[in-house]
Amino acid sequence: MRRLCVHTITTKPLPLEECLVEFPKRGVTGITLWRQALEGRDPAAVRLQVADAGMEVVSLCRGGFFPAATADGRRSAVEDNLRAIELAHAVGAPLVVLVCGAVPGQPLAESRRQIAEGIGAVLPAADAAGVRLAIEPLHPMYADDRSAVSTMRQAHEICDALGSPVGLGIAVDAYHVWWDPELEEQIALAGRKGRLHAFHICDWRTPTTDLLNDRGLMGEGCINLREMSRWVDAAGFTGHREVEIFSDRWWAGDQRAFLDAIAASYAQLYHE
Amino acid sequence: MRRLCVHTITTKPLPLEECLVEFPKRGVTGITLWRQALEGRDPAAVRLQVADAGMEVVSLCRGGFFPAATADGRRSAVEDNLRAIELAHAVGAPLVVLVCGAVPGQPLAESRRQIAEGIGAVLPAADAAGVRLAIEPLHPMYADDRSAVSTMRQAHEICDALGSPVGLGIAVDAYHVWWDPELEEQIALAGRKGRLHAFHICDWRTPTTDLLNDRGLMGEGCINLREMSRWVDAAGFTGHREVEIFSDRWWAGDQRAFLDAIAASYAQLYHE
Repeated sequence: MRRLCVHTITTKPLPLEECLVEFPKRGVTGITLWRQALEGRDPAAVRLQVADAGMEVVSLCRGGFFPAATADGRRSAVEDNLRAIELAHAVGAPLVVLVCGAVPGQPLAESRRQIAEGIGAVLPAADAAGVRLAIEPLHPMYADDRSAVSTMRQAHEICDALGSPVGLGIAVDAYHVWWDPELEEQIALAGRKGRLHAFHICDWRTPTTDLLNDRGLMGEGCINLREMSRWVDAAGFTGHREVEIFSDRWWAGDQRAFLDAIAASYAQLYHE
Repeated sequence: MRRLCVHTITTKPLPLEECLVEFPKRGVTGITLWRQALEGRDPAAVRLQVADAGMEVVSLCRGGFFPAATADGRRSAVEDNLRAIELAHAVGAPLVVLVCGAVPGQPLAESRRQIAEGIGAVLPAADAAGVRLAIEPLHPMYADDRSAVSTMRQAHEICDALGSPVGLGIAVDAYHVWWDPELEEQIALAGRKGRLHAFHICDWRTPTTDLLNDRGLMGEGCINLREMSRWVDAAGFTGHREVEIFSDRWWAGDQRAFLDAIAASYAQLYHE
């Protein structure tokens, strides 16, 4: 399980302190911290607690949401991302994942312009803090309100437009990109460009009954995670495979049993 | 309203005979017939009834669903498409819209291969019947079970792979492709290649509460239909703008009031 990471949001009902106990019991070696899991905690202390638990912090979720209807709103977004970078640095997260954002009804081209501008505005601070940034393309069903960046191709274009800074890359989330006919080549390109910063896994259920919180555990859906993982490995990625599942169904049950199921599913998938 | 077409599925609770009365009252000049609306009717008689109502048949919905796990299943799909072509000919529909299909869990590359093969198998019959075919890329949220073709780029590739037959083109449905960063150029390409066969309109609601039946009336959502319609017109398309709305909400109400709302929304959008 040496590459297994779990997001705190995956076991949302568990407070961080319980995640730090329960994750390692299943062999989890990486943890991605969501900002809400850190609320009311001292990030420097959490950094030590994670290390004491025998895990490493893989990334901080999440920054982004750059587009806004007003200049004030866009300034607030930049400030929020600066806080996320500072928090990542304090908690020992080498990476901040960016859900880029969108404003319902605002032209996508304008949102995309604002996203590139916002990322450009926070890159120097990320660089200074030694924190990398990863653009996470989201499934096109979120294009109106969560991410005007829907494909890896677009994420590459933003990296290119900003001059291919070393600290800026892409988070590949299987849930968002599995349908993309260009996926294999875009992952390979990310490898060649040094942009493959994160790999998130879960599954797509059919039927999907809720656009947000009906993700499946690996094996519950249609995504060919073995093939996609081969593409990611072939691109030179050696980091953690991060289990990120939003599921009202799983959240309603016992989180320890859920973690058992995650570990079993991961072990079957990767024979690690 | 000279370019306004309504799909029979849009007013699903209305029997065809009532559509033929109610549509023209609102100035609707085109009708797209769904096969279920024709059940138990003589297509040659319907053809005359549509003409008597002062409308033209714009297309027949729908063929497609070519992929299947077995060769028998794929043969059945081809036979079903041959029946659709025959029905289109009999009812006076110049076009059959193809929802290409997918098999849950089957690799998308395999489904895409089966789609190209299936279309290739029915093209001669369509050609002989004087009926055109249109590949309708569906939103990526349907990639596992309804269409392994998610983008116009993919639809173009299938047309190319089959040798760009004159009778094969693309149906652009705003609901499925509005998020696509390549949309403008792919529509223009469809114009240049003579492949722009149909244009469907409705709206994307935020939040969308159901993946299938929560489409919005034009104006209820985020899609910039004016801009997209300009692109479609600039590509040389002069056909009907087809209102295709799946909505449990609208279907639960009075269908005459719904038709009034469609006509008003269309008039506001296009000032026709």
